[in-house]
Amino acid sequence: MSLTIRLHITNTAQLHSTIKKCHYRTKFKTKPIYHSNPFAPYLLIHKEMASLSSPSNKGSLVVKSSLIEPDGGQLVDLVVPEIQRAAKISDAETMPKVRLTKIDLEWVHVISEGWASPLKGFMREDEYLQSLHFNCLRMKDGSVVNMSLPIVLAIDDEVKERIGVSNNVALIGPNDDLVGILRSIEIYKHNKEERIARTWGTTAPGLPYVEEVITPAGNWLIGGDLEVLQPIKYNDGLDHYRLSPQQLRKEFDKRQADAVFAFQLRNPVHNGHALLMNDTRRRLLESGYKNPILLLHPLGGFVKADDVPLDVRMEQHSKVLEDGVLDPETTIVAIFPSPMLYAGPTEVQWHAKARINAGANFYIVGRDPAGMGHPTEKRDLYDPDHGKKVLSMAPGLEKLNILPFRVAAYDTVEKKMAFFDPSRAKDFLFISGTKMRTYARNGENPPDGFMCPKGWQVLVKYYESFQAEDSPQKQTVLSA
Amino acid sequence: MSLTIRLHITNTAQLHSTIKKCHYRTKFKTKPIYHSNPFAPYLLIHKEMASLSSPSNKGSLVVKSSLIEPDGGQLVDLVVPEIQRAAKISDAETMPKVRLTKIDLEWVHVISEGWASPLKGFMREDEYLQSLHFNCLRMKDGSVVNMSLPIVLAIDDEVKERIGVSNNVALIGPNDDLVGILRSIEIYKHNKEERIARTWGTTAPGLPYVEEVITPAGNWLIGGDLEVLQPIKYNDGLDHYRLSPQQLRKEFDKRQADAVFAFQLRNPVHNGHALLMNDTRRRLLESGYKNPILLLHPLGGFVKADDVPLDVRMEQHSKVLEDGVLDPETTIVAIFPSPMLYAGPTEVQWHAKARINAGANFYIVGRDPAGMGHPTEKRDLYDPDHGKKVLSMAPGLEKLNILPFRVAAYDTVEKKMAFFDPSRAKDFLFISGTKMRTYARNGENPPDGFMCPKGWQVLVKYYESFQAEDSPQKQTVLSA
Repeated sequence: MSLTIRLHITNTAQLHSTIKKCHYRTKFKTKPIYHSNPFAPYLLIHKEMASLSSPSNKGSLVVKSSLIEPDGGQLVDLVVPEIQRAAKISDAETMPKVRLTKIDLEWVHVISEGWASPLKGFMREDEYLQSLHFNCLRMKDGSVVNMSLPIVLAIDDEVKERIGVSNNVALIGPNDDLVGILRSIEIYKHNKEERIARTWGTTAPGLPYVEEVITPAGNWLIGGDLEVLQPIKYNDGLDHYRLSPQQLRKEFDKRQADAVFAFQLRNPVHNGHALLMNDTRRRLLESGYKNPILLLHPLGGFVKADDVPLDVRMEQHSKVLEDGVLDPETTIVAIFPSPMLYAGPTEVQWHAKARINAGANFYIVGRDPAGMGHPTEKRDLYDPDHGKKVLSMAPGLEKLNILPFRVAAYDTVEKKMAFFDPSRAKDFLFISGTKMRTYARNGENPPDGFMCPKGWQVLVKYYESFQAEDSPQKQTVLSA
Repeated sequence: MSLTIRLHITNTAQLHSTIKKCHYRTKFKTKPIYHSNPFAPYLLIHKEMASLSSPSNKGSLVVKSSLIEPDGGQLVDLVVPEIQRAAKISDAETMPKVRLTKIDLEWVHVISEGWASPLKGFMREDEYLQSLHFNCLRMKDGSVVNMSLPIVLAIDDEVKERIGVSNNVALIGPNDDLVGILRSIEIYKHNKEERIARTWGTTAPGLPYVEEVITPAGNWLIGGDLEVLQPIKYNDGLDHYRLSPQQLRKEFDKRQADAVFAFQLRNPVHNGHALLMNDTRRRLLESGYKNPILLLHPLGGFVKADDVPLDVRMEQHSKVLEDGVLDPETTIVAIFPSPMLYAGPTEVQWHAKARINAGANFYIVGRDPAGMGHPTEKRDLYDPDHGKKVLSMAPGLEKLNILPFRVAAYDTVEKKMAFFDPSRAKDFLFISGTKMRTYARNGENPPDGFMCPKGWQVLVKYYESFQAEDSPQKQTVLSA
């Protein structure tokens, strides 16, 4: 590993000049290319060198991965080794208990696997304040990592009193199981109004995460170092999709990826998305990468009521690969276990940062990422361009290549999804999520070429099941 | 200058070890001492070296100032040289006009003199977004400067339309005078709700700056490069107190300051403040500084209606120096021309950052800086400790030494203001601003030793003038 770094330093100038040439030749608009993984083109060279090295040096010379470095330099893994589990459990039995909601547990999952590296537990006040005010944390060595969302655990007055002067607490899951331990805790005030205002840029009633999570929460936050007794599982038939950042990195290495481009989504994949992802791969190949791998990375935690549920989306995504719209050889589909906050420019940083930790060095960002309609006014909550602008300037994300989304729409002349051409705007049909849901709900077909047929059938079946249930409550949600 | 930097690098380790020894010996709690001005102890050495150098090298060797470097490396000065003025005026005549409010003009003043260095005009959208989300700006060289408040100019639909496709606009003052020019303009949306939420951490009605400035403002922001035709003056008899950062730096150099500690205030100075400032000087001397200078720096722009007006405060401050409570030899009293936002932890960064530009390398921070009561709830708007915590972690302020305020109160045994001693809490009397105003309004005297007599008389006279006027409106304000 140390040799890798030395080689990097020695070759930096030459490397940049080579890649920059590619960069400008293809008019591939990203941030300066030195933000990408500079080791990539040298992967094979390093491996060859390692195999030539003397046995005594072998340990330090074997390059394990060419992937982008996780934030803080090392991927956090807070799952207790099997051998220590029994002792930890008996330890936890003596501690005051803190009960987790379903969404708290999603955050435990996120933190424990290192998606939020270098965060090692729920935030203490120093981390919370930096996240809230600066969207980043300053590390002890002076470096900065992005951290745009407060990742916090709320407790109420009663629990706070029960904890008293204890230093550690046991975390109890929604099913009464012992999930983990929070050590060297710090309890501080939960100023909900300020948290909401600084995270969402509004305090208007009706923000889904606020109503679900923050409003009912207690007036205190508890931070500390997390230990998780075993990997978080949901037993919903989708756990095999829930690859940790470590597992994803192994998979990318196994496939010898020299670029990883992540696509965050919480909606079904239509052919416009596919066009974008395939086009990105093409451009990466043109830039000189030999084996760019797509991480198709649907969000798996809390989503608002009218979003398509995870199991339906996962089935739809698998059909998209079955139908060959995306190439299974160069695509990894996995679930990103984070809840969704719908916090626009603040949240998109989190979405990108977490993917760095999973090994992605390219991130595709769309129009109005993590955005939604304003809950009380007739407008988008966020300026649709702010997400990509904020992302491109965010502290701690300099090493990530941001790939702005090109707008795709249905080309009524070519009868397929295509990149929007403003010179013949009238030929293009924009099919919104609402429009798509209306088609599916009414059993109508969207225009040919909008989505692969098997993928579309998944959605139709989902909406049919709704009507069969004839649930007034769900109908209301659908029309919202 | 270049030699200075080399010397710094060469001597860093030794320097730190020397200063650290001082540091720990005196238990002087600041951030790690390498954040202070590392040149300070070497000032004389540099000057001696400069005088020994050969004439050909003299230019690069003369160290002009030992003061902390302004943000961005160079102090911004946007006042047009006299010789260019006529041409600029005739140039401006052809441009669309944008009318400034009184508070816009205060910001023009602030920007033009370099308090907001390296900002060179009202913010364009990139700067606005960075300020709003990250409280800092990333410079082209990758370095970061603090910039916690959006410094923006709002215009309405009509003015936007009038500007059309023009590249430059003329700025017209509240008295119809031509103030300056904004060049290479960019117009972008003014999302007031988001700006307020992210700056104040609340959108509750009743925030003074919001009601005075933002609510009545237009729905667009206009950024660009500022040129000011002549230094901003107010002709209120206080202009001689309005020293620019450049003038302050000259004054500090003239006095051969080797440390400058700034005290931001918007209230009359009582003996508790004086105790703190004198104690800070004593501690700086003990730390090895030879000539620490106090910048007593009352805020001179917009304040809320029940704060004491600037002219009264300045008279009160001058009495405090006359009475010898602060030493005129080691104190500079000047006006900080910024408006006050009452935005707590977000604003205190601005207060500190601006003082770096004026040459201060130490900043005294109190309880609940730039805070106020919540406008609609019975509590402080901000956690009183958040200001100093946020300040100590703020990006771009690493080079500033933050000196937390020690709480002073009236010691009823010693009959003077003293640092609060929790072991005999019952002996101490806390005299709030409201309490102080009540004393003055009722013609009562505060306890002996609370404030120097001449300073107190200024306040009494001010509140008497109120009652003489018998203005129902002002009475209401006072009781607010």
